[in-house]
Amino acid sequence: MPVKTIEWVGGPDGTARLIDQTLLPTELKYLDVSDVETMWDAIKVLRIRGAPAIGIAAAFGLYLAVRNTRAGDYATFKTELDRAAQYLAGSRPTAVNLFWALKRIQDLVAAHADEPVPAVKQHILSEALRMIDEDNAVCRAIGEYGLELLASAGLPGQASGLTYRILTHCNAGGLATAQWGTALAPVYVAAERGIPVHVYADETRPLLQGARITAWELQQAGVPVTLITDNMAATVMAQGKIDAVIVGTDRVAANGDVANKIGTLGVAILAKEFNVPFYVAAPTSSIDMSLASGELIPIEERKPEEVTEGFGRRTAPPGVRVYNPAFDVTPNRYVTALITEKGVLRPPLGASLANLFKSATSG
Amino acid sequence: MPVKTIEWVGGPDGTARLIDQTLLPTELKYLDVSDVETMWDAIKVLRIRGAPAIGIAAAFGLYLAVRNTRAGDYATFKTELDRAAQYLAGSRPTAVNLFWALKRIQDLVAAHADEPVPAVKQHILSEALRMIDEDNAVCRAIGEYGLELLASAGLPGQASGLTYRILTHCNAGGLATAQWGTALAPVYVAAERGIPVHVYADETRPLLQGARITAWELQQAGVPVTLITDNMAATVMAQGKIDAVIVGTDRVAANGDVANKIGTLGVAILAKEFNVPFYVAAPTSSIDMSLASGELIPIEERKPEEVTEGFGRRTAPPGVRVYNPAFDVTPNRYVTALITEKGVLRPPLGASLANLFKSATSG
Repeated sequence: MPVKTIEWVGGPDGTARLIDQTLLPTELKYLDVSDVETMWDAIKVLRIRGAPAIGIAAAFGLYLAVRNTRAGDYATFKTELDRAAQYLAGSRPTAVNLFWALKRIQDLVAAHADEPVPAVKQHILSEALRMIDEDNAVCRAIGEYGLELLASAGLPGQASGLTYRILTHCNAGGLATAQWGTALAPVYVAAERGIPVHVYADETRPLLQGARITAWELQQAGVPVTLITDNMAATVMAQGKIDAVIVGTDRVAANGDVANKIGTLGVAILAKEFNVPFYVAAPTSSIDMSLASGELIPIEERKPEEVTEGFGRRTAPPGVRVYNPAFDVTPNRYVTALITEKGVLRPPLGASLANLFKSATSG
Repeated sequence: MPVKTIEWVGGPDGTARLIDQTLLPTELKYLDVSDVETMWDAIKVLRIRGAPAIGIAAAFGLYLAVRNTRAGDYATFKTELDRAAQYLAGSRPTAVNLFWALKRIQDLVAAHADEPVPAVKQHILSEALRMIDEDNAVCRAIGEYGLELLASAGLPGQASGLTYRILTHCNAGGLATAQWGTALAPVYVAAERGIPVHVYADETRPLLQGARITAWELQQAGVPVTLITDNMAATVMAQGKIDAVIVGTDRVAANGDVANKIGTLGVAILAKEFNVPFYVAAPTSSIDMSLASGELIPIEERKPEEVTEGFGRRTAPPGVRVYNPAFDVTPNRYVTALITEKGVLRPPLGASLANLFKSATSG
């Protein structure tokens, strides 16, 4: 079983326990957080990261901010809550899921304006715990659908006694969510059922999430993992070592174009060349039907130092020009299927997505 | 003009001057070598690297070993020379070009067995200098043919006033040869003629030759260069920023399959996908007609630490399994043309290579 990224330990007076991801992959240290300032810092310095995990951390953070309040009336309580929400929102101002989670708690509180403050506090903690359950449910569903997909693709696995050999890029694993991950959920579900699975993890330059996080969490969960540099993916595919690629996504456009960590596009093209299925684990929360296509997604450029001195030592000449896009867009034609928590979507992805959201709104 | 990797300074009592590449990219330091032990060490610890450069260094090393000998007769002299050759051969036992260069000097000495020792010494120094001239001639010819090729491919450049935008992988630049490089020779020849050229350099994990060496030498020569991580190549091609890929090679098989630094295969596949020509600078010395195809080339695996702690600090969990092939093989179908010092070879490469070597032996 994968490690728990974040959980609540104890009752209303308990603490949020999270893995300090800044110490990975060389040290596993749990941090028990019992005040909002420590949670703010944990989000700020990336002790916790990944959209779902950040959302949960923010919800716990809000609870910690107000659980010892002396406010006796709703108005005072709500003012304190909103101030704490504003404070937490500043910890990572570009993380959309952070605002979504804060607003969810604020809306919940507003909906219980007529209840006594102690009861409202309890609602907040319950809601944060519900967010973990929901995240686990979404991830597990992606895991189930993903595993079915591997089986239906006629790949080796349980029936044949052979091993599913999966290549992944970056970290869309348990450590980006509460526990199960998105791209790695099918892997964990397979492992849970005793189906042999082996993951090839791209190290994922420049920030090495694959080396530091994906390799670590799979190792912790006892899943066989082989680390490669990004530029070795072509060779392992050419050698017939990969049955399927599964990656996560930051954002899927309405036509099925996929924005994800830089390097995903290259992997998708290689997969096509070697006839390896390219699957994207995409919780519906990552699908943005307001975007017609991936071309509309602006590509964020990050600072050159991530490339030139990412791990302490300078490895490129001073003053060298660097291009450092944070992610890339994989056109839908390279995507074999999207794995959502509501089922698998196949090409034409635009129509499949439209259909999914039509049934979601009409159902 | 590119920097000189290695040169001879002064007369018969002079020194071999080389750039200490272990200090790049943060420090440019020339090392004046006047004894064979220092040269042995320079080859051993990679102060000098790249097949042609190592060959030249070995030849100078042999000269330094015997130039102050008291041997008065040929037999004694030859014994000393052979002992020095054996010593130098141990500096980097897998470098084929090292043995080739040592044997070339030993054969030369044997051919002058009837001459007085001082004259033979002079022959050795002259031969080492000739090796530099030959290397420069080969590289410059590749540069000329490569530049013609870029022009004939209808790419932008001199005529249009636009810039040739070249992507390269690893370092097949001046610092692997005496001065001009192979893959970078067309770039330097273009720059020399005032033709605008811009190089995108893959950093080339795990050893970062692109970041440490290619970016540095282009910067030194005043050629615009942009450093990217390997997994960004797909994005820059998708953005239409690359007119051609030019890479070097360790070995070309008789059918035109190309062994080169790990990651080359991926770049070749991306180039095909984006209709970007993929050129391989291949001096005829790198072509091995005894190998029917690239599948016969064994892929050397290197130690995991290059991947897990290549930046100084450990960046992957202890004990993680790593696959670290040193190079890959690009099948001939991805190769748009080979650029040799005798001209450009186009597909079908097997026939073109057979023809080249037929005319070479019959001519």
